[in-house]
Amino acid sequence: MTKPNKRVAVLSPVAWRTPPRRYGAWETVASNLTEGLVARGWDVTLFASRDSVTRAHLHAVVDKGYEEDSTVDPKVAEYLHISEAFERAAEFDLIHSHYDFMALTYTRLVKTPVLTTIHGFSSPRVMPVYQKYRDGYFVSISDSDRVPGLNYLATVYNGIDLSLYPLQESSGDDLIFLGRIHPDKGVHLAIEVARRSGLPLLIAGIIQDETYFREQVEPHLDNQKIRYIGPIGVPGKNELFARARALLHLNTIPERFGLVLAEANAAGVPVIAMDLGSCREVIKDGQTGFLVNNVQEAVRDLQRLSEIDRRACRQRVQQCFSIETMVEAYERVYRTIFDLEAARRS
Amino acid sequence: MTKPNKRVAVLSPVAWRTPPRRYGAWETVASNLTEGLVARGWDVTLFASRDSVTRAHLHAVVDKGYEEDSTVDPKVAEYLHISEAFERAAEFDLIHSHYDFMALTYTRLVKTPVLTTIHGFSSPRVMPVYQKYRDGYFVSISDSDRVPGLNYLATVYNGIDLSLYPLQESSGDDLIFLGRIHPDKGVHLAIEVARRSGLPLLIAGIIQDETYFREQVEPHLDNQKIRYIGPIGVPGKNELFARARALLHLNTIPERFGLVLAEANAAGVPVIAMDLGSCREVIKDGQTGFLVNNVQEAVRDLQRLSEIDRRACRQRVQQCFSIETMVEAYERVYRTIFDLEAARRS
Repeated sequence: MTKPNKRVAVLSPVAWRTPPRRYGAWETVASNLTEGLVARGWDVTLFASRDSVTRAHLHAVVDKGYEEDSTVDPKVAEYLHISEAFERAAEFDLIHSHYDFMALTYTRLVKTPVLTTIHGFSSPRVMPVYQKYRDGYFVSISDSDRVPGLNYLATVYNGIDLSLYPLQESSGDDLIFLGRIHPDKGVHLAIEVARRSGLPLLIAGIIQDETYFREQVEPHLDNQKIRYIGPIGVPGKNELFARARALLHLNTIPERFGLVLAEANAAGVPVIAMDLGSCREVIKDGQTGFLVNNVQEAVRDLQRLSEIDRRACRQRVQQCFSIETMVEAYERVYRTIFDLEAARRS
Repeated sequence: MTKPNKRVAVLSPVAWRTPPRRYGAWETVASNLTEGLVARGWDVTLFASRDSVTRAHLHAVVDKGYEEDSTVDPKVAEYLHISEAFERAAEFDLIHSHYDFMALTYTRLVKTPVLTTIHGFSSPRVMPVYQKYRDGYFVSISDSDRVPGLNYLATVYNGIDLSLYPLQESSGDDLIFLGRIHPDKGVHLAIEVARRSGLPLLIAGIIQDETYFREQVEPHLDNQKIRYIGPIGVPGKNELFARARALLHLNTIPERFGLVLAEANAAGVPVIAMDLGSCREVIKDGQTGFLVNNVQEAVRDLQRLSEIDRRACRQRVQQCFSIETMVEAYERVYRTIFDLEAARRS
């Protein structure tokens, strides 16, 4: 395996600390990858906020993430942060960007190859930037979250730290929902499944759409069968998983990856997920949960939960969605890039 | 004079067309400079929106200014627009940026020297970027609009097209205010001067602060002595200048340059201006108007308007604030940079 003699810069966002204290999926992945690479002997420089926690070399231009420090102008922080990684480009064999479209606009000004993991297209209006730089090196976070024309080298699934989510040996009684309270995540469909099946439902997550919560969630809360418990951290998630019969994830738009599905499976909790976007990549239908197309199918498949082997759920996460698996996959991508660059130079 | 064998890129903003249809001071200056350089034989490439009007080579990545096209994301437009100028850097002997702090973050990634005209510090929060890149080449638009520590090569005053504002041979009766309706511009002080002096006042300009207009301007409008006529273009300005006894410009914060002062003077209209910021650079006290420190002094100096020679006002604008003067001043700055760069290389 090509490694320690290569120097890698990991460009994390500066919205939050790396790793984030609570919310911040992109920073979480950048952190897991960085620490994993360091553990395997790579020389890594992490570009992130100054309060970040890492065993890599840390390069910072802002003290705190701009979401955590109102004195910082996000635009100023982004321009200063991104450009510094490129100003130091000659010191690295590879720059691995987790920073959306902005970093792409610096890539043609340096000789160092740049790999971009697309954690999501933040808006359709950013597509012209990806189209212009489509010949760069890209990684998608699921096969379904791809757009035509970009030079994808691989899909690398996000990896989670399985030690955070121990296996819950036996099933609980409740249905659970875990995620942002937003129509995209189908909380209203989970409620519908609970009502039709007569099973209790616990809802956890930040309220991202207040109107949606007020109109389509709150009226159904009765403090008994259907309850909302607010946002929760890792300990809260484990308590939730311990009480879970199944996780309901009836997303209404294509999922890009679906970290929570892997977390639930890691704890042995079967997942009933809408067959939209990446869900069929994360959940193996009939083995780690069920893929459905509507509420009716979700209610039906609740009858089949006993078919699911909880240990097999965790095993699959270990195999496909662990940090180790992710880091090894990125190592293969890096090696591909080093080979391509060497061929280009010779 | 060093010229035609040098290739210059002028980087204009893409908020508006270059030149702007109405509002857009930075694009106006970029346009005046570009056309002036072309007229004097320079090989200029203007980076601006595609609908821009120029005799230079036009390079565009967005069809229209983002303020005129809601389908464009300003951030996307800025990143794509600025980076393209730097991607073409090797084709130019100089990049002249009118694009605030953002363009600075690309300057260390190219060999071509970059000159930045600071049209204004858009917020105190952008200062860290200027401090980082303080060794670059900078031009201020007035001596007063400088911050310590930056490598200023010169002050170059903005130039106006005097042919747009013919001399009004004789004085009108009215006081006039021309500018954004905003507390910074002291509309309320102009009204106070009108009331104390008993002279009529015509107010023109866009309403930028609705609350201010409603609370401190509107209550004084009587459709006779004090009138508001809305935003006006060049013909409207000339009608206003024809009726003007004097322009009142009682700004409450330091002026950065004060284009309207030069426009009024070009038409022969004396200016009574607050002695704050660049006003004392644009207005020559006792010759093209009066510098004052408060309303009382402004009322007093209205008695002295007959001392002002209207032709001398226009002459001074011709000499100090014409497009020709501006272009020649920039040519001197360019030559200084070419000399410094040649010395650095040898």
